[in-house]
Amino acid sequence: MGIERIAILGCGLIGGSFGLGLKAGGFGGEIIGWDRATVLGKAKERGAIDRGGKEVVEVVANADLIYLATPVGLILELLPTVGRKAKAGALVTDAGSTKARICRLGRQAVREGVHFLGGHPLAGKEVAGIENAQPDLFAGSKYVVIGEAEEAKDRRADPSLPRGMTEVEEEFLGWVQRLGAEPVWLDAETHDWAVALVSHLPQLTATAMAAVVGDETDEDGLPVSLAASGFHDMARLAGSSYEVWRDICLTNSENIGRALERLEQRLERLRTLLGSKELAEEFRSGQETWKLLNKTEEKESDG
Amino acid sequence: MGIERIAILGCGLIGGSFGLGLKAGGFGGEIIGWDRATVLGKAKERGAIDRGGKEVVEVVANADLIYLATPVGLILELLPTVGRKAKAGALVTDAGSTKARICRLGRQAVREGVHFLGGHPLAGKEVAGIENAQPDLFAGSKYVVIGEAEEAKDRRADPSLPRGMTEVEEEFLGWVQRLGAEPVWLDAETHDWAVALVSHLPQLTATAMAAVVGDETDEDGLPVSLAASGFHDMARLAGSSYEVWRDICLTNSENIGRALERLEQRLERLRTLLGSKELAEEFRSGQETWKLLNKTEEKESDG
Repeated sequence: MGIERIAILGCGLIGGSFGLGLKAGGFGGEIIGWDRATVLGKAKERGAIDRGGKEVVEVVANADLIYLATPVGLILELLPTVGRKAKAGALVTDAGSTKARICRLGRQAVREGVHFLGGHPLAGKEVAGIENAQPDLFAGSKYVVIGEAEEAKDRRADPSLPRGMTEVEEEFLGWVQRLGAEPVWLDAETHDWAVALVSHLPQLTATAMAAVVGDETDEDGLPVSLAASGFHDMARLAGSSYEVWRDICLTNSENIGRALERLEQRLERLRTLLGSKELAEEFRSGQETWKLLNKTEEKESDG
Repeated sequence: MGIERIAILGCGLIGGSFGLGLKAGGFGGEIIGWDRATVLGKAKERGAIDRGGKEVVEVVANADLIYLATPVGLILELLPTVGRKAKAGALVTDAGSTKARICRLGRQAVREGVHFLGGHPLAGKEVAGIENAQPDLFAGSKYVVIGEAEEAKDRRADPSLPRGMTEVEEEFLGWVQRLGAEPVWLDAETHDWAVALVSHLPQLTATAMAAVVGDETDEDGLPVSLAASGFHDMARLAGSSYEVWRDICLTNSENIGRALERLEQRLERLRTLLGSKELAEEFRSGQETWKLLNKTEEKESDG
């Protein structure tokens, strides 16, 4: 039995890549997509879905697994309908970038017998859309799965622990692993603070820095025309689409605000230390993080 | 006649690459290096210099071109001696990352008949040292050359303008071009503000952001272990060596302070706009800069 029919709501980069990965990995059931008609056409053409549906209610009705991969705001809008119309025994899961609000609503929104599991694949590209979907998008990435704080901690510490999960949940996580991703259990609050620091803070910093430099740029293109690879790498994220980030900022504003405030304070500190020997200590702190990051990445590519 | 003997003071990444580039480009004269004995040994072995000298006075005595490529602080220390001991008709030039203090001192320090020309090759790597020097390091990069404000503006606007330069200056700039770099005339103040924005600000921002994230990282490695390519690219500069940046921060502290302050204000603004529609405008500003940067880079790779 198990998962025979999957509904993917939002067939862009993430949803499309999930569908392509399932097909490439040998999923033999049916995949039904929901999105704008043009996107559904492309998703079918690329083989990410078998067919598309116009009405959410119809698309999710007989699905064993419902995968929500729209921007966060639309996930929040869809959850009440999806939770009410999903069939008994179904698993509703999402791929949204912030988790506290989605998971709170998700748990409330599903009717008796339907399960909700929040998720966040830490995979992505600078480019969005079904055109850029790829079956191996999740390969080598972490895939955060949300549990209650204690449960998430236990599962993180000992992956062999009896899970107390439904069969559909186990099968879904099996697919996550078959797509090459590593499930990481976190509670929603820990997740949202972590991504505020390592994802949302870099994004907003790139935007702010690019905006500051843009304001100073004259008709000759100075100083942008003098930029080398350092600025290029730091400004790359400034090219990101606001549509995606609007919802992230809206649903994680408290954590992001805290992270921004810490950065402002740190920059102010650096500013007061420009001529001082204590600046060495700040560079050392930054270098430690860079080393830790590379050690973490090395360990992962070894595994 | 022209340039027959070149002294390179500081035979690391920049000085070593300059020497290797000259040799690869067919320079037939002699190159004498000055640095620590181990560095000189490696520079000779790699063919960046013909021989090394222990005393600055002896190394620069008969040189037609003296190329200062040490960290900024040491350039400032060396200039008085070099300016006094250079032979008549010689050109003293430097490759320091900040220009106002160096150029002010350089012009004062050279004795009658010796010329000083400030320069800054906008080339570099994350790694320093003669081991990483390469003959084509400057290829495709800009090479800032410092003139008085009016003069720099005229030369930037019309490169065919009669230059009023000495033969040695012309020959040196000919070599810069033969190494694949594009000379860009700027006055020292314009340069220092420009690099404060597109080089020094990214560096200190990367350091501050990495330090903030490092402070929050627990024994499990969270949140660094969740970082993806966005954070990686933004944190890369945090790995830079303090030795180089100490002098840059010290000699361009006013401009850097101003750039940091603008970024702090912009981040604060973003923070207040997290839940607001005006956030769209901030993203748009950042995107404009990113587009401009890519247009500039495209135009350059076309040329």
